[in-house]
Amino acid sequence: MKTGYLQFHPELGNPAKNIEKIKYLLKDKEFDLMVLPELANTGYLFNTKEELIKLSEKAGEGNFYDSLFEIAKTKNAYIVSGFAESDGEKIYNSAMLVSPEGIKGIYRKTHLFYEEKKLFTPGNYGLKTFSISTENETIKIGIMICFDWAFPEAARTLALQGSQIICHPSNLVMPYCQKAMFARAVENRVFVITANRYGTDVSGDKSISFTGGSVLLDCSGNYLASAPIDKDEVFIAGINPGDALNKFINPNNNLFEDRKEEFYYN
Amino acid sequence: MKTGYLQFHPELGNPAKNIEKIKYLLKDKEFDLMVLPELANTGYLFNTKEELIKLSEKAGEGNFYDSLFEIAKTKNAYIVSGFAESDGEKIYNSAMLVSPEGIKGIYRKTHLFYEEKKLFTPGNYGLKTFSISTENETIKIGIMICFDWAFPEAARTLALQGSQIICHPSNLVMPYCQKAMFARAVENRVFVITANRYGTDVSGDKSISFTGGSVLLDCSGNYLASAPIDKDEVFIAGINPGDALNKFINPNNNLFEDRKEEFYYN
Repeated sequence: MKTGYLQFHPELGNPAKNIEKIKYLLKDKEFDLMVLPELANTGYLFNTKEELIKLSEKAGEGNFYDSLFEIAKTKNAYIVSGFAESDGEKIYNSAMLVSPEGIKGIYRKTHLFYEEKKLFTPGNYGLKTFSISTENETIKIGIMICFDWAFPEAARTLALQGSQIICHPSNLVMPYCQKAMFARAVENRVFVITANRYGTDVSGDKSISFTGGSVLLDCSGNYLASAPIDKDEVFIAGINPGDALNKFINPNNNLFEDRKEEFYYN
Repeated sequence: MKTGYLQFHPELGNPAKNIEKIKYLLKDKEFDLMVLPELANTGYLFNTKEELIKLSEKAGEGNFYDSLFEIAKTKNAYIVSGFAESDGEKIYNSAMLVSPEGIKGIYRKTHLFYEEKKLFTPGNYGLKTFSISTENETIKIGIMICFDWAFPEAARTLALQGSQIICHPSNLVMPYCQKAMFARAVENRVFVITANRYGTDVSGDKSISFTGGSVLLDCSGNYLASAPIDKDEVFIAGINPGDALNKFINPNNNLFEDRKEEFYYN
């Protein structure tokens, strides 16, 4: 299965330009599953909910969704991308899973970071695993967004649900995650795709910078790719997601069967 | 608080020599808390329970305990060390916490690695946090042993119990743990002391090698020390365990309060 990440610098408040950039970067690429950053069409640094709401979309509707659907159809592929999701009065920091047939799933960020708490409603869907099918295989993928990484329970929950690949749209500002995803991969024996953005958002007298360095790890914790901190990059690797179904690390130790739930959290 | 690890190469089946080595390495050192490797007095590669049982000790009894107690009294310090613990017919891969007043606690390894499953009984005490007091402060520490690291729930449980330092006697054969402990430190905001052994145990036609590289991390994930892979090392750092009581990583995010338990493991 050909899977990867797209790292770029979304321009704050300019979805049309960002969509064009995504189309351009993916134009000559072949893949089955592509992960884009968090809030890939809007940028990140919104000061008010009003600014953000204008750029948000309902799940499975709007220009950004339409554009990703078009790419998914053309490429016969799946895309996971962050976006601002409106649902009535609420806005969620969400990710959409788009298939060649259309919208396949929505995940709403569970653990909101810093000032996101002023803008977004915390995700109410929980952590969810989705099936995706290519010509040759059907596999399960999970989605978590950015700061969700800091809670080991998030990736663990997805892995226990059967996720073989953790798709992780991100707008990381701290330098920890890219290093820590090693643990998420080896403790769960899952593939990890952290698609981060880079660049700086400026709004009034505020600014925030992002750390790039997107990573793709196999389920043994090998970094198959690690992007530059400040450049566009589309990375695509051929992986065998079936490897993640085997939780044995030696003939006697299965990472899931060896769990001793009776001793956890008490 | 002065705390650290002792890394060495225990000689298989030669507790007397190993005790002398530990005494020698700690002779001129001052510390409040010292962590020794897993099975620090016996070595690791036992083929039968019979071989092992001869070298095991009851909790708070025996030559190894007596020697550590003597050091703890002399130094007015705490020591955490791995040992083979006999309890009736059973042998546990345990760690003792020795204070200047004597035995303070026992932890029995929860997650047994590979062929340990043939020799040891899985720990039945669960994961436990202990209070220790120096002249200036009383803090909480947790103990986990070697392969316990691979289960994020182990360190998480100790941290949620209030452990500020995770003491981690180890006999690591894989190269993953020393890197992954970065995640354990930052996801829980705890100090981590992984005291590993190095060298090779040979028994008959079998052998097994250990990866050294003991680490001490602060609760922000900084590696305060990283030992060589094949040399004795006693490392002692002055740390402030109180830092680990603060789970805020910014004014809006507290790593424990932000947990969304309703979405985990389902």
